[in-house]
Amino acid sequence: MSQFENVSITKKANVYFDGKVTSRKVTFADGSVKTLGIMLPGEYEFATDAAELMEIAAGDLEILLPGSDSWQKVVGGESFNVPANASFKLKIYQVTDYCCSYLAA
Amino acid sequence: MSQFENVSITKKANVYFDGKVTSRKVTFADGSVKTLGIMLPGEYEFATDAAELMEIAAGDLEILLPGSDSWQKVVGGESFNVPANASFKLKIYQVTDYCCSYLAA
Repeated sequence: MSQFENVSITKKANVYFDGKVTSRKVTFADGSVKTLGIMLPGEYEFATDAAELMEIAAGDLEILLPGSDSWQKVVGGESFNVPANASFKLKIYQVTDYCCSYLAA
Repeated sequence: MSQFENVSITKKANVYFDGKVTSRKVTFADGSVKTLGIMLPGEYEFATDAAELMEIAAGDLEILLPGSDSWQKVVGGESFNVPANASFKLKIYQVTDYCCSYLAA
């Protein structure tokens, strides 16, 4: 599926880390929410409220998930989950195009 | 209007200038197309096919429009038009959140 259909998209971008991470919110007919975003090379830490599924469409990065002490390589076509109410770290090596799904509790 | 409703959004981002300019395509029920994008500080040149309306939601930039020899300041809340089959230059001073509408010939 190359596009999301019959959705709403919030015009204003979410901007983090001086614009090195940006995203826009997509809302589906059933009320569920995803963000489509871009991360430029750098190191970042994010905190979650809801649990997240991060799908990496393109990119080259490493992630440090909560409770882990080893960085895990992720490339385009792969995905990972982050639990709710947690923080995780990313090292981005190449421009990363992602889709983040916020999972119901 | 804070969001576009009943649209399709292309999942894959358009990535230019090593990711310093990125956008995603939004397609409306009537077939018209806009892109929502982010430009980070830097200097860029773009070429148009269709004429474009560039609406700047947030940002601080200067533009050099085709046929002009003077740079024009643009800030969030302002917009400008670019003719079809032309090139224009931008100097981005602060992270710029924009909506580009592609205008019918």
